[in-house]
Amino acid sequence: MKAVVIHAAKDLRIEEREPETPGPEQVEVAIEAGGICGSDLHYYNHGGFGTVRVREPMILGHEVAGTVRSLGEGVSGLAIGDRVAVSPSRPCQHCEYCLKGQQNQCLNMRFYGSAMPMPHIQGAFRQSLVAEQWQCHKVAEDVSINEAAFAEPLAVTLHAVNRAGSLLGKRVLVTGCGPIGALAIIAARAHGAREIVATDVMDAVLEKARAVGADRTINVASEPEALSPFATNKGTFDVQFEASGNGSAVRSGLEVLKPRSVLVQLGLGGDVSIPQNLVVAKEIEMKGTFRFHEEFALAVDLINARRVDLKPLMSGTYPITDAVAAFEAAGDRSRSMKIHLSFT
Amino acid sequence: MKAVVIHAAKDLRIEEREPETPGPEQVEVAIEAGGICGSDLHYYNHGGFGTVRVREPMILGHEVAGTVRSLGEGVSGLAIGDRVAVSPSRPCQHCEYCLKGQQNQCLNMRFYGSAMPMPHIQGAFRQSLVAEQWQCHKVAEDVSINEAAFAEPLAVTLHAVNRAGSLLGKRVLVTGCGPIGALAIIAARAHGAREIVATDVMDAVLEKARAVGADRTINVASEPEALSPFATNKGTFDVQFEASGNGSAVRSGLEVLKPRSVLVQLGLGGDVSIPQNLVVAKEIEMKGTFRFHEEFALAVDLINARRVDLKPLMSGTYPITDAVAAFEAAGDRSRSMKIHLSFT
Amino acid sequence: MKAVVIHAAKDLRIEEREPETPGPEQVEVAIEAGGICGSDLHYYNHGGFGTVRVREPMILGHEVAGTVRSLGEGVSGLAIGDRVAVSPSRPCQHCEYCLKGQQNQCLNMRFYGSAMPMPHIQGAFRQSLVAEQWQCHKVAEDVSINEAAFAEPLAVTLHAVNRAGSLLGKRVLVTGCGPIGALAIIAARAHGAREIVATDVMDAVLEKARAVGADRTINVASEPEALSPFATNKGTFDVQFEASGNGSAVRSGLEVLKPRSVLVQLGLGGDVSIPQNLVVAKEIEMKGTFRFHEEFALAVDLINARRVDLKPLMSGTYPITDAVAAFEAAGDRSRSMKIHLSFT
Amino acid sequence: MKAVVIHAAKDLRIEEREPETPGPEQVEVAIEAGGICGSDLHYYNHGGFGTVRVREPMILGHEVAGTVRSLGEGVSGLAIGDRVAVSPSRPCQHCEYCLKGQQNQCLNMRFYGSAMPMPHIQGAFRQSLVAEQWQCHKVAEDVSINEAAFAEPLAVTLHAVNRAGSLLGKRVLVTGCGPIGALAIIAARAHGAREIVATDVMDAVLEKARAVGADRTINVASEPEALSPFATNKGTFDVQFEASGNGSAVRSGLEVLKPRSVLVQLGLGGDVSIPQNLVVAKEIEMKGTFRFHEEFALAVDLINARRVDLKPLMSGTYPITDAVAAFEAAGDRSRSMKIHLSFT
Repeated sequence: MKAVVIHAAKDLRIEEREPETPGPEQVEVAIEAGGICGSDLHYYNHGGFGTVRVREPMILGHEVAGTVRSLGEGVSGLAIGDRVAVSPSRPCQHCEYCLKGQQNQCLNMRFYGSAMPMPHIQGAFRQSLVAEQWQCHKVAEDVSINEAAFAEPLAVTLHAVNRAGSLLGKRVLVTGCGPIGALAIIAARAHGAREIVATDVMDAVLEKARAVGADRTINVASEPEALSPFATNKGTFDVQFEASGNGSAVRSGLEVLKPRSVLVQLGLGGDVSIPQNLVVAKEIEMKGTFRFHEEFALAVDLINARRVDLKPLMSGTYPITDAVAAFEAAGDRSRSMKIHLSFT
Repeated sequence: MKAVVIHAAKDLRIEEREPETPGPEQVEVAIEAGGICGSDLHYYNHGGFGTVRVREPMILGHEVAGTVRSLGEGVSGLAIGDRVAVSPSRPCQHCEYCLKGQQNQCLNMRFYGSAMPMPHIQGAFRQSLVAEQWQCHKVAEDVSINEAAFAEPLAVTLHAVNRAGSLLGKRVLVTGCGPIGALAIIAARAHGAREIVATDVMDAVLEKARAVGADRTINVASEPEALSPFATNKGTFDVQFEASGNGSAVRSGLEVLKPRSVLVQLGLGGDVSIPQNLVVAKEIEMKGTFRFHEEFALAVDLINARRVDLKPLMSGTYPITDAVAAFEAAGDRSRSMKIHLSFT
Repeated sequence: MKAVVIHAAKDLRIEEREPETPGPEQVEVAIEAGGICGSDLHYYNHGGFGTVRVREPMILGHEVAGTVRSLGEGVSGLAIGDRVAVSPSRPCQHCEYCLKGQQNQCLNMRFYGSAMPMPHIQGAFRQSLVAEQWQCHKVAEDVSINEAAFAEPLAVTLHAVNRAGSLLGKRVLVTGCGPIGALAIIAARAHGAREIVATDVMDAVLEKARAVGADRTINVASEPEALSPFATNKGTFDVQFEASGNGSAVRSGLEVLKPRSVLVQLGLGGDVSIPQNLVVAKEIEMKGTFRFHEEFALAVDLINARRVDLKPLMSGTYPITDAVAAFEAAGDRSRSMKIHLSFT
Repeated sequence: MKAVVIHAAKDLRIEEREPETPGPEQVEVAIEAGGICGSDLHYYNHGGFGTVRVREPMILGHEVAGTVRSLGEGVSGLAIGDRVAVSPSRPCQHCEYCLKGQQNQCLNMRFYGSAMPMPHIQGAFRQSLVAEQWQCHKVAEDVSINEAAFAEPLAVTLHAVNRAGSLLGKRVLVTGCGPIGALAIIAARAHGAREIVATDVMDAVLEKARAVGADRTINVASEPEALSPFATNKGTFDVQFEASGNGSAVRSGLEVLKPRSVLVQLGLGGDVSIPQNLVVAKEIEMKGTFRFHEEFALAVDLINARRVDLKPLMSGTYPITDAVAAFEAAGDRSRSMKIHLSFT
């Protein structure tokens, strides 16, 4: 079987790997679609992020869906031919955080396609993947396989919404409308946000933000003053989802957030300079959000029930043999939201 | 009557002012004790803080207690001779935040001794103060007037504890053990913190921290590695009260805080550089805390009921005529926690 | 002008009243639509409920919408001809609960059409109503006046959803699908409930429940065992909205609610016998919900933005002169959800 | 070794049992003290409670402490001779509730001395007990073995306080001052309750309530009207801990609880009739609390650190050979709070 392997920055290869055999309560999934994520792009463009570096060849990828090809012993609830989204999150279920219901904080997490531990955790951009049965969530018949591959990034933003608390009556600001920001709009809209204002520095991206549910969009590059009126009376927004990783988006958010509001920070970034006097005087709550746990199943449910529409975010599908072209396209946010690889 | 008036940095004068007459539901309080606060010191040393500057002579002070001298019409529940702690917080009770129960965020707040608005809000370091009856909280007989003057800064830290949520079973880190940090220890201890570790850079200050309830203290200047063991398994502390205003205290706190823990930031500071990757990956909640509202009455109750012991924090009393010496002493944290002025 | 006045049980009259003149910051609204509510029906059928009795003639009604006919001095943001939904909730904004942001608990509430205080608070089923400008919320052009009159009962259920906390990922049980139960389905669906199961004892009512968003309905009269499978593994539902006022609905809910779940009780009822061992052993949270405050504006926003569809709940409109027939129809739940009066 | 075995109502026997040998990561504890709990008394007096009946001989008891006598393989952190409190709670750590951090709701719980499952879970009133090492918590040197045996019921009330949320500034009502009510007073006081009012029907019991921290006590039998003033302005108390299991205590609590307050129900009882109109109109939150999980370790910490004083609740110690006399004494609340058995 073929796999998409990163060796170093800009050194991405399609290689042959031996398919594995499913053990007890495991299934073999013929992967059909894989979405390229920001962290995949970091490995491709820079060989890692922060202090994390690729130190041995690693299969990339963690946003995948496919069809069950074979079953290990004792599998129940899944049959050969079932189309499934596969969760890349594999917590140990034994450590202190798992036993507190904080599986995304597992001390022994084995998340697909991660170069943090050594040996690296091999990823899911491969034609055959053996997974635990509980990682596999059935996809409804009329859901395309690329939509199914959205379960993972949608789960990330559902967890972010979960961290924000109830959105009933809340005015929401989304800063940064790449795939994660756009999915945060979808997740917030599906959970009752009263109003959503989205910002970015590119018009093409903001058009997508409107297509998926933003009530209003602001290009903060071309309209640098457009957020100012929202600062009246100590601020307008109850919740900010910060998906730009940009310090100035944090800073401008703090200006327009209401007292006692919540800023949810998505994505791993570097150091950011914060005006503490605003955080203190307005008693703002800045909270990080990291991956997901039970939200993966919820993402699949929402996709299956057509309660979210992901189609506006699909920017194209490349055969696995054109993986390099796919990664280059995915890295160009002027033309791409989410790029998918096809493994069939 | 005499008042303590700031004109500019290092220009503090004792001046005569005309006493006021209490109107309906107001009382005149003969102020007897006033605690010098960090913001008073900023006015004295720098003529202000951040972008706030003293632009006209302003009476300083907001931590005061005294005896009721005369009553306006319709006052009930207070009698001449009652000893009272006076809350400096005067929210409008009409704006959108007051009507949400967030009076400390009042759009029209008139907090004693503040140079933010123009004209400035005159302070309470004066021999006679006219206040609303609801600002005045009776003090128990055996409580000294200096203890009563602690109600305000204690209320600040009670609000911080309120912001942190229940401390049942929680391990608490307090960074910075000046008066506010020390009072945070007292407030956290009184509300059930399981364990309190306190840090500072001065041994004299840490000795006070232990005296008021810290289980363990660490001098992070002389023992720079002593916090490291607390970083094991993603961290140890459930709550941090950050009272140093120092970026490195925030940073070292983030290393030893557990996933999903809370960092409560006290005090107004400037910009602080935050390692966002830690906030995100450990899903930490950083929240500001600002002044207080209902916690003032609670502070008086706790003092009256002897459920808190403030005596270890008293560093000396100066007559109003020695105000300059008092301010100089208050500014030297190697020898002073809380300095009080006497107005009698 | 004409008004719908209750004198005693089954003694409902259309009477002439003198129209009032709007004072400062007040407007006169020509009422056009009024929805008949359960409490109106109680006055009509029984002359009151619980210990509350009609002791003097009282205009009924609190679910109303109309057109601004004249303006008092100093009104801003409203013009003659504007179509508005009028909130019947008039808290004092001065008592301890108003100043905690709990206006629905106001000690001096003057809610339209209530016989609790003496003199009674006259209601809004009248051709001309003088209201404070802040009670009046503009309705979008394409919203019918009957839809606008739904703002009040929708607000009741939005407050119930608010009390339940975030519905992200939550499985919801709604017991009792009269107008309030059906609106609870709409409110829960709009705020992200993962799955909604609704129960009632009448098929006609359950059909409406499905029309407004229930995923599954169960007639607990004809299928008494159909809820049992949901009791597996200590229960299935995270949230119950109890809108039947029936003790057996509470009891069967407790059987199928998960540990640490929330049962939100709507509507005023009498005594209910609770199996405390279930509440204790499963640590269930039973919480009351009463009227609304900020949720009225939210209800209008949701109606204006077409994020809720109320049309399936409209069962007919009667001219004010047929008020008695309207009340009789409203009381027959086999054929009516919501009956509206027309005042034009 | 000897064990205290219940065969049927009023048929309690001291019997010989074969001591067990500790397996890997287990220890053998020579039990020294055992507190008699309300559920033990139910088995003794009635042969069970609710639908639960003793169907085979069962060793009673779950409030125990003793000394480590031997170690299984691989035990770390415990040595022979260590004095320990032993948690009776043994969740499976694998079921859906354990993996949500709700171990007290474990689907496979094996709690000492419970006749719910068949075969029954044998209890801990025995001279030798083999336990997992994680069940055993070291006791400080100056803590008596009877105090150590209080860890379990104290943990129950700490969990109840946990369920109530932060007690900062809260006025607390405790109804029913038997051992659990009295420990609730201690737990609430240790976690910052502002004021505690306790009720019961026996003066002897209320004297103990005052001894452990109640600010005021009311004998609701002899002063039936004494709670009435607390009903003013919709109520006074923010939190009620209901430990009487008496419907009238729930009802009178609802009268004096403030809007949006919390009633925490402890103990398993039968059906209780609730005035739903009060729950709804005041939006009260009634929540059950059941056993504990992480609070057991906290209880031991608080006892070790002398942050709680349990001595006022000790009513006497009986040798195991006088178990029947001990159970009779424990059942007479006019003279006993907590009776301990001695196993040495």
